[in-house]
Amino acid sequence: MSILEQIKSELPWLDDKVSFDLTRGKPSVDQLNITQKNFKLIEIPFEMDGIDLRNYGNPEGIPSARTLGAQILSTEFDETIALDNSSLTIMQQLVSCAYHLGFPKSKLSEKTKFLCPVPGYDRHFKLLENFGVEMIAMPFQDDGPDVNVISDLISKDDDISGIVCVPRHSNPTGHVYSDQNVKEIFELIANKKRNFMVLWDNAYACHDFRDTINQTPVMKLADEYELKDNLFIVGSTSKITLAGSGLAFFASSELNISKFIEYRNSLTPGPNKLNQGMHVNYFKKSSLQSQMESLKEVILPKFELVEKYLDELKIDGFCDYIQPSGGYFISYESSNSKAEQIIEHCSKLGLKLLPVGSCFPYQKDPKNSNIRIAPTFPNLENLERCMEIFSKVVKKLN
Amino acid sequence: MSILEQIKSELPWLDDKVSFDLTRGKPSVDQLNITQKNFKLIEIPFEMDGIDLRNYGNPEGIPSARTLGAQILSTEFDETIALDNSSLTIMQQLVSCAYHLGFPKSKLSEKTKFLCPVPGYDRHFKLLENFGVEMIAMPFQDDGPDVNVISDLISKDDDISGIVCVPRHSNPTGHVYSDQNVKEIFELIANKKRNFMVLWDNAYACHDFRDTINQTPVMKLADEYELKDNLFIVGSTSKITLAGSGLAFFASSELNISKFIEYRNSLTPGPNKLNQGMHVNYFKKSSLQSQMESLKEVILPKFELVEKYLDELKIDGFCDYIQPSGGYFISYESSNSKAEQIIEHCSKLGLKLLPVGSCFPYQKDPKNSNIRIAPTFPNLENLERCMEIFSKVVKKLN
Repeated sequence: MSILEQIKSELPWLDDKVSFDLTRGKPSVDQLNITQKNFKLIEIPFEMDGIDLRNYGNPEGIPSARTLGAQILSTEFDETIALDNSSLTIMQQLVSCAYHLGFPKSKLSEKTKFLCPVPGYDRHFKLLENFGVEMIAMPFQDDGPDVNVISDLISKDDDISGIVCVPRHSNPTGHVYSDQNVKEIFELIANKKRNFMVLWDNAYACHDFRDTINQTPVMKLADEYELKDNLFIVGSTSKITLAGSGLAFFASSELNISKFIEYRNSLTPGPNKLNQGMHVNYFKKSSLQSQMESLKEVILPKFELVEKYLDELKIDGFCDYIQPSGGYFISYESSNSKAEQIIEHCSKLGLKLLPVGSCFPYQKDPKNSNIRIAPTFPNLENLERCMEIFSKVVKKLN
Repeated sequence: MSILEQIKSELPWLDDKVSFDLTRGKPSVDQLNITQKNFKLIEIPFEMDGIDLRNYGNPEGIPSARTLGAQILSTEFDETIALDNSSLTIMQQLVSCAYHLGFPKSKLSEKTKFLCPVPGYDRHFKLLENFGVEMIAMPFQDDGPDVNVISDLISKDDDISGIVCVPRHSNPTGHVYSDQNVKEIFELIANKKRNFMVLWDNAYACHDFRDTINQTPVMKLADEYELKDNLFIVGSTSKITLAGSGLAFFASSELNISKFIEYRNSLTPGPNKLNQGMHVNYFKKSSLQSQMESLKEVILPKFELVEKYLDELKIDGFCDYIQPSGGYFISYESSNSKAEQIIEHCSKLGLKLLPVGSCFPYQKDPKNSNIRIAPTFPNLENLERCMEIFSKVVKKLN
């Protein structure tokens, strides 16, 4: 009997109609219901901060939305702007501006190489790849990207002039960068500050679901090393309010912000201020903190469930993983380079996972070991079934 | 007595506090009030077409919004996608995709040159300039871009592989391309179809305020010349519903759409579907046609007012202009190369106009003659004062 047949016989509910999807970090219906409950009560605002939200203009966003962004990203108001619905789109525009025009301290080109701590976020890597930026995969240490490796790499290669980071609850590993780690990275980058771009995607800035270390606001650390012009921070409410219909923010030095707004004048007459106003009103009904508390109640049990299964596999020596303190993902490390087989077998049983290598530049997982698990989307019952399938596949393949 | 002093003495209401702005094509408060009246009544939809609008996904937009886009752009549903709030942002992403990855029939590079009928839209030119695309200014004939000039230019220069067009109520000249004109252009381009990008910004597709010729849907004409893969159509509801908070659309061959969606996966997890749903609901309360009729009642009197003043100046031989049949602009042509002086003098009297050359690539108006007048934003009373200032400045300078 094949492995697939064995599993099917052991899981009587597993028929051909089973179709689960753990590929993307999508909020669940329960999470979205929390937002909808307040969102449907807000009146659509047409005026705010003395600004007509219905018309063009205000490329920096309305003040109340910038205040919200500064709160989420732990940045200063003057250094934070509120834009449209996707921080990834902001990142594409930042890289495009750096590539075609250049920021004062960041000028990308076909020769540019970026450091990419791995496993990382697939869309970051695709975005950079699409600009022809060469990506150098590099490992993590416990409290952030591996400083020794960064030191080694940048001392040997002058074309390295960027790094892409998810500093809190990193996608997918869950790493939370310590202040010490960030300072050591910044000290190394300081030698290259004439041309270096730190893409700092703080997508999970306030998405703790377990005790998480405090982080000093990164602009303050950058200031100590005179790196504010090198630091490009983005974030959004996509995983706070509505995925796809939220607000995205950009924070950097005022010099960069001014350059970016000038650049954006060529590609938009201004952000969607109506959506900004709606979000400002939303957080009058539910504070950021209470919103995140409510979401945590839905999310944490799902992580606990996945971890229950993974702990068992870990004890058996089949895998390694680090329990995250927040965010949206668990990064599964297969002990015996079986990621591709596991993913294929799960797929044949109706459980969809990202293709092997997805969390690496050029989709190349050198150890064939990494699988990103995104537990949030299914309900608990379905998630348990996902993990039943996953767990059985791992065991049978080992 | 200086010209400025003379005018101030002749216009007793003209004090230092006067501040008018005719720079941008912004809807007026009256127009926005028409939209708000219906918009405030719509319930925010959280589900539509069987899709959860609150979550990520559907990179092509929801079907109902695509249907709306196809209606506005006169395109087929399968060849039309609904995205976020700015068609200009779509255009930046199209050019970026063409530049860095290439579409099947459009691959841009540093060597690429674009034909730019002038006067044209300043943000188009800045967008292309920011990619390092060389822009070749070229004139209009009565019913569209000058076909003989296109023929001459592309026969002499192989690097020309694009053109940017506003085919209906062109910004700022008001040109409406005839079918005959489009066919002649397409016939010329057909020889270069292996690599040619037609950026077709149909921003004023349904913005007639006077009788306007019918245009055959451009995809049909493109099909006749096997140019569907070369045609990139954009448009939006920015000047139909809410400026900055509307919906933008992209239409092209299914091949291009599929390539573009793949590219966009690297820069967004999907469009703002909530805003799409809100707009779909909006047009259940007010049909597109009745919406445009209501807007026309506000807009047309403003154009008539401006034209009253310009007719007088035209009779005096100070200028030329063509009465537009729709859109947002009037293109003023100074007879004696006095555009810069007119703009400067108006500015000193409190009337802001775009800097000279704004409607030309690289901001170079070779004849120093063009001034774009955007009549929509002020109310009638203020618009009259703007034209009093403008008219007096022109007369005194001649």
